[in-house]
Amino acid sequence: MHPAAKHNRIGIEEKILGANDREAANNRRLFAAAEVYVIDLMGSPGAGKTALLEATIPLLASQMRIGVVEGDMATSRDAERIAALGVPVVQITTEPLGGACHLEAAMVGRALDRLGLDELDLIFVENVGNLVCPAEFDLGQNARAVVLSVADGEDKPLKYPLAFREADLVLLNKMDLLPHLSVDMAALRENLKQVNGQTRRIELSAVGGTGVGAWTSWVRQAVERFCMVKV
Amino acid sequence: MHPAAKHNRIGIEEKILGANDREAANNRRLFAAAEVYVIDLMGSPGAGKTALLEATIPLLASQMRIGVVEGDMATSRDAERIAALGVPVVQITTEPLGGACHLEAAMVGRALDRLGLDELDLIFVENVGNLVCPAEFDLGQNARAVVLSVADGEDKPLKYPLAFREADLVLLNKMDLLPHLSVDMAALRENLKQVNGQTRRIELSAVGGTGVGAWTSWVRQAVERFCMVKV
Repeated sequence: MHPAAKHNRIGIEEKILGANDREAANNRRLFAAAEVYVIDLMGSPGAGKTALLEATIPLLASQMRIGVVEGDMATSRDAERIAALGVPVVQITTEPLGGACHLEAAMVGRALDRLGLDELDLIFVENVGNLVCPAEFDLGQNARAVVLSVADGEDKPLKYPLAFREADLVLLNKMDLLPHLSVDMAALRENLKQVNGQTRRIELSAVGGTGVGAWTSWVRQAVERFCMVKV
Repeated sequence: MHPAAKHNRIGIEEKILGANDREAANNRRLFAAAEVYVIDLMGSPGAGKTALLEATIPLLASQMRIGVVEGDMATSRDAERIAALGVPVVQITTEPLGGACHLEAAMVGRALDRLGLDELDLIFVENVGNLVCPAEFDLGQNARAVVLSVADGEDKPLKYPLAFREADLVLLNKMDLLPHLSVDMAALRENLKQVNGQTRRIELSAVGGTGVGAWTSWVRQAVERFCMVKV
């Protein structure tokens, strides 16, 4: 970019993010008033976010009332997978909205009407599959979790730092593939620590089940602290 | 978004894309004048784009002069991996440029001065790892290839259609992991065909070597047709 174009662009981005922050604050007030805990689940396409929800929801659904917001560029495939679990779900597809590569607070805000906030204790927002952009957009969530497939390599926290910096929790998924990969797990853990020394890390396999209990415990405790529901 | 905000945003995006198209046309003229063939390599973080270049460059370097532009949010790790192969490489990190989630034509244009266009027959541009945004930004390339890890699942072409629609070639990578995955390859091929019936598909393993020959043949023929270099 020419310096002028760059300056102009950054100005535009600040305006978009400012408008988003106001919508996020509004969502946050609605969530607090309804005593709903909201987790924004971020990660690349194929990191295993939907598979993780499929493993998680059956373990928690008897203890709390769960709803899901699904973000994708196109199709309602993920919403169909979640609906099969018997919990309320709203699909947001961004392609008709200009093809956004992330969810924005106002999109989530509009989905809440259809989800029925007062009937829920916990909402998972599965963001658009993208390790870069979603982290820039506050949705009014209580916590952010990044799902990273260990098949994607140990250097990802260093090369795509923003999402990891923003994360309260990092879920290293597809641990069942580890024997077949050349990924350096010690380096991955170290790279993660280097980018964000505060974030909690859980290593798991959404399809195999290993580590899923540690994640559901984290969720249960977070909801308990926030909502004071009996779980 | 409110309708007004949405309208405003789409207007802004059109302006940014319009400015990018002018820079891309300029790159395209420079590439044509220097008789350099340029391939924009897109895909999620961890799809295996750099590993593919590590497998590709040694097979082609005796037949043509290759340069690489590496795009990442942060670090020069990929450029270091490519430099180890003995070919000229320029790293673009987008975080100091406002954190862009994709390469833009002007960024590539500035990298060309450092790469020495007249000394090259082929340039690989490894875009920022992101299956959504890079496809929106023309870089002036001759061809676009999308790298998709088969570990990411069969539904990705349907859920992230733009990159696949834009692709001249789709490389299904990490085929060596297939015995350990539950991915439905027939559905993946069918989904790809549904989104883009014209694109060529090559199934390969950058680390295992299977299928890499089909890809290097495709590259060699494309360069031959374009540059009339003797390969």
